[in-house]
Amino acid sequence: MTRFDEFLKANEAFAASFTRGDLPMPPARKVAVVACMDARLHPEKALGIDIGDAHVIRNAGGRAQDALRSLVISQQLLGTREIVVLHHTDCGMLTFTNEQLAAKIAADLGVNVAGQDFLPFADLEQSVRDDVAFLRNSPLIPKDIPISGAIYDVRTGRVHEVARA
Amino acid sequence: MTRFDEFLKANEAFAASFTRGDLPMPPARKVAVVACMDARLHPEKALGIDIGDAHVIRNAGGRAQDALRSLVISQQLLGTREIVVLHHTDCGMLTFTNEQLAAKIAADLGVNVAGQDFLPFADLEQSVRDDVAFLRNSPLIPKDIPISGAIYDVRTGRVHEVARA
Repeated sequence: MTRFDEFLKANEAFAASFTRGDLPMPPARKVAVVACMDARLHPEKALGIDIGDAHVIRNAGGRAQDALRSLVISQQLLGTREIVVLHHTDCGMLTFTNEQLAAKIAADLGVNVAGQDFLPFADLEQSVRDDVAFLRNSPLIPKDIPISGAIYDVRTGRVHEVARA
Repeated sequence: MTRFDEFLKANEAFAASFTRGDLPMPPARKVAVVACMDARLHPEKALGIDIGDAHVIRNAGGRAQDALRSLVISQQLLGTREIVVLHHTDCGMLTFTNEQLAAKIAADLGVNVAGQDFLPFADLEQSVRDDVAFLRNSPLIPKDIPISGAIYDVRTGRVHEVARA
């Protein structure tokens, strides 16, 4: 039995009591969150986001560069007008360099990815400031869109503000 | 008051009753989900994913190409051994072409993105099959990793299987 089979089984119970089938495509609260994929971070729970409220974009690290395509679609086609970047403590992106990961991939998979940037970081707070600045300076993000950056503490569940731009 | 301020306020209540601060970095159920950013889809709720269980990667459309960096990190550094791709009905990616979006961006932002692929699709089921095939054929994804693809119905909350590879 795969995890997929377990998910299908769990979904039967979810669908049986589902009552939010009438919502429009654009997010009600007109905001997009960029967060890490980490298993311990559930952005909707941590930030009080209900079904239909917000776009939630997630990738390894919650990196803004990797989210830009999605953010442009979110704003230009679906009307969101604010961005929140959410990284977290004990992030896997703090634990490796591009060179180390490339060496592991070469050894385990026989694939050469030398030169590819997997977007790790060495300083958590700086990674949030960098991603907020990246978005603030992007010509694809309108200048009147508020952009905030924060850190989620996986030990306490608490979010603290790092940057606004 | 920004949405960010509202999120910080909501987080106070979440953190006050938080009890899952003891979990390790690798996902307990060793699975990564690739899903759309859509506001109506909360993958954890729909699939029965608890805090600490699974990596959840989300982008516009739930496209696999855009998730590859994150999946490699998930598998090579954090031990996940299965992938589930989850697209959904009434997806924004069904509503535009690259040319239309490029024209809107040129008109609204004055930026030329002609030639950039924003990964829209015209056929929902085919988009899932394409993304499962993309991952199955990637040299960066080991051949023994089960990969499944499914569609979430935003009207009913129900997930149905489209592909396994």
